[in-house]
Amino acid sequence: MKITPDKAKMEAVGRLAGGAAHDLNNMLGAIEGYATLMLNSLKPEDPLKPDLEEIRKAVARASALTRKFFTFSLRAQPQNKACSLNAAAEKLLEGRPALEARGIKLELRLAAGLPACSCDQAQADFALAALLSNAADALPEGGTVTVSTRLVPGDPPLCAVSVKDSGQGMTPEVMEHIFEPFFTTKEKGKGAGLSLAMVYGISRQNNGRIEAQSEPGKGAEFTLFLPESTQNLRKI
Amino acid sequence: MKITPDKAKMEAVGRLAGGAAHDLNNMLGAIEGYATLMLNSLKPEDPLKPDLEEIRKAVARASALTRKFFTFSLRAQPQNKACSLNAAAEKLLEGRPALEARGIKLELRLAAGLPACSCDQAQADFALAALLSNAADALPEGGTVTVSTRLVPGDPPLCAVSVKDSGQGMTPEVMEHIFEPFFTTKEKGKGAGLSLAMVYGISRQNNGRIEAQSEPGKGAEFTLFLPESTQNLRKI
Repeated sequence: MKITPDKAKMEAVGRLAGGAAHDLNNMLGAIEGYATLMLNSLKPEDPLKPDLEEIRKAVARASALTRKFFTFSLRAQPQNKACSLNAAAEKLLEGRPALEARGIKLELRLAAGLPACSCDQAQADFALAALLSNAADALPEGGTVTVSTRLVPGDPPLCAVSVKDSGQGMTPEVMEHIFEPFFTTKEKGKGAGLSLAMVYGISRQNNGRIEAQSEPGKGAEFTLFLPESTQNLRKI
Repeated sequence: MKITPDKAKMEAVGRLAGGAAHDLNNMLGAIEGYATLMLNSLKPEDPLKPDLEEIRKAVARASALTRKFFTFSLRAQPQNKACSLNAAAEKLLEGRPALEARGIKLELRLAAGLPACSCDQAQADFALAALLSNAADALPEGGTVTVSTRLVPGDPPLCAVSVKDSGQGMTPEVMEHIFEPFFTTKEKGKGAGLSLAMVYGISRQNNGRIEAQSEPGKGAEFTLFLPESTQNLRKI
């Protein structure tokens, strides 16, 4: 079974995420502003300082959440930058020792000469790290995650990166919801369920798309497609 | 054209709303807690007091938003209370002078002896006020809003309230999104577009449903159905 996120559903979700992030940022900005004003007016040893710092920390946590919401909102602006999916994949190798400790083998199969694709490099790095983390979480008993890149001819040509795990796979019921924010099959406290929604948002803002493919018992594979960069800065 | 909100879409929206409200409430609770601690430690004339009060006001505004989100979240708890739709409709008459000033005639057609239905009275009052406000906004040149109640036989019997305007009606494109949070056809600054999502949430938590019916040029009618109260406290 192969799915792409339901457009009408993700649009409604994106509208809520964007509206919530916008309204909350206004309120959080006010709190941050007053807390900073107060901090600046206090002497270094003032006993109120730690409380104000706690307020700023809570604002920072809330702002981090609203930034995540922006990623899958309708308000996210396309970056129109260029990035290398191969470089993003190679960065995943840094996590190999930690994966091996969990009995997970990480394999890369990268297409030589893959052109730069249209996405901010930090977003591409985040997307691949999120897909790897999701794949690793599907392997509680260990297994293999294969990350592969390829060029898909077309107009525009698409750079594709697939992250495939050898786990138990997903049921159709789970696949139906997999890109929805706060949907998770994990235990409480183990991830808020925002990262796949963010990967979807990254695909969308860059005029790409994401697909999930799985059969129960046969692992799962997520593929992110991004258009070749019009900047075409470099061949990698 | 008659629509009910798309279940899969509203479930995804509700999951995001509930997750966002839950996470933000934790952070807002921390801010409110520290601000209160600090306020209590200050002398009455301390010049920091106004800034702390501003922080608390911003927290209150953000909390009001998260409470709205809870209304259409999957986490909202059914109230299992009893309310009178006729009483909620009659409260709308308080707004009649303001409507008449806008050239809008408000007509009530209430079913005598309508039984109590399963909903908190404050929620029913809110739902009818939101539907009336939505109808009035569809009448920039004035017109008529008709609010009617009726009992729909069945198991359980349903109490229904319809709010119908004589405006231009909605296109199918607008109807498709009308219950989504932050969807609005109004100018910026005129309503955040949360109230119909909240009415949907109220219908859902009380095992009722909501329908919208409209043809372009022929006005719009929203009907809220709520099950007869099992408490059946009173016949009104």
